[in-house]
Amino acid sequence: MPNDMDLSHFRPGQLLARGVCRHLAALGFATVEELVPRSGLRVDVMALGPKDEIWIVECKSSRADFMGDAKWQGYLEWCDRYFWAVDTDFPADLLPEGTGLIVGDAYDAEVLRMPDPTRLAGARRRVMMRKFAVHAARRLQALRDPGVRLAGQ
Amino acid sequence: MPNDMDLSHFRPGQLLARGVCRHLAALGFATVEELVPRSGLRVDVMALGPKDEIWIVECKSSRADFMGDAKWQGYLEWCDRYFWAVDTDFPADLLPEGTGLIVGDAYDAEVLRMPDPTRLAGARRRVMMRKFAVHAARRLQALRDPGVRLAGQ
Repeated sequence: MPNDMDLSHFRPGQLLARGVCRHLAALGFATVEELVPRSGLRVDVMALGPKDEIWIVECKSSRADFMGDAKWQGYLEWCDRYFWAVDTDFPADLLPEGTGLIVGDAYDAEVLRMPDPTRLAGARRRVMMRKFAVHAARRLQALRDPGVRLAGQ
Repeated sequence: MPNDMDLSHFRPGQLLARGVCRHLAALGFATVEELVPRSGLRVDVMALGPKDEIWIVECKSSRADFMGDAKWQGYLEWCDRYFWAVDTDFPADLLPEGTGLIVGDAYDAEVLRMPDPTRLAGARRRVMMRKFAVHAARRLQALRDPGVRLAGQ
């Protein structure tokens, strides 16, 4: 059974990201994990929606994990909607107003609060679409063909 | 050694596609295999280049494979450049003028003839970029998380 695969090598944030990606897939989004929008930033989940909307989800496995994140506001300019994903034990009051909230685990997740939308400019949206496409394709190729050498890597 | 992986479950065209994707990766392209631009068409390799150029490569493992392809002209409108990929034994004279030629095997490939370029309209390019992104991300997710259910599948 796929749900019985060994998850022991996943970090807590990655388990949450897995459940988030499952839920977003069910909503018709395509997702990638650990995408780098620019040097120094790495988003946990980037999702591309049916209308080309771009969502970013940062997965926080604990209060300490959230409190130690000094970068999250830097993600806002790269997406139409920004979400936190946490587990049911997380103190959701900590999360800043106006941001979205997804609660989940390794197996599924649910959007509990939609964030204030912004609207990416067309040029930025195209840049993100390209980054998403290249990231996904290169990761896929590396999994299918471990012998490949990717340019610039 | 990655090059020693078991390739016995690949079909001849897939082996060729693997070498083509390796070469295109070295040129800075991101690639996906078996993308469907529209119902009834499935391209062997679609590549997205550093300048957002879109190439399509059809892999032909034999003369019979090529002669049986009645659809290839339908691919031209979906790319900036169209190539055939064949192995060294293939009678390359058979290939139509104006199309590109890549010769390779499962391990590498080389562009021997650049095709006449066309230039996709901006709207079509965006459609293809999106298809590429969604295709790559969904395949990647399915490999990383076999338990995922993708919308519409």
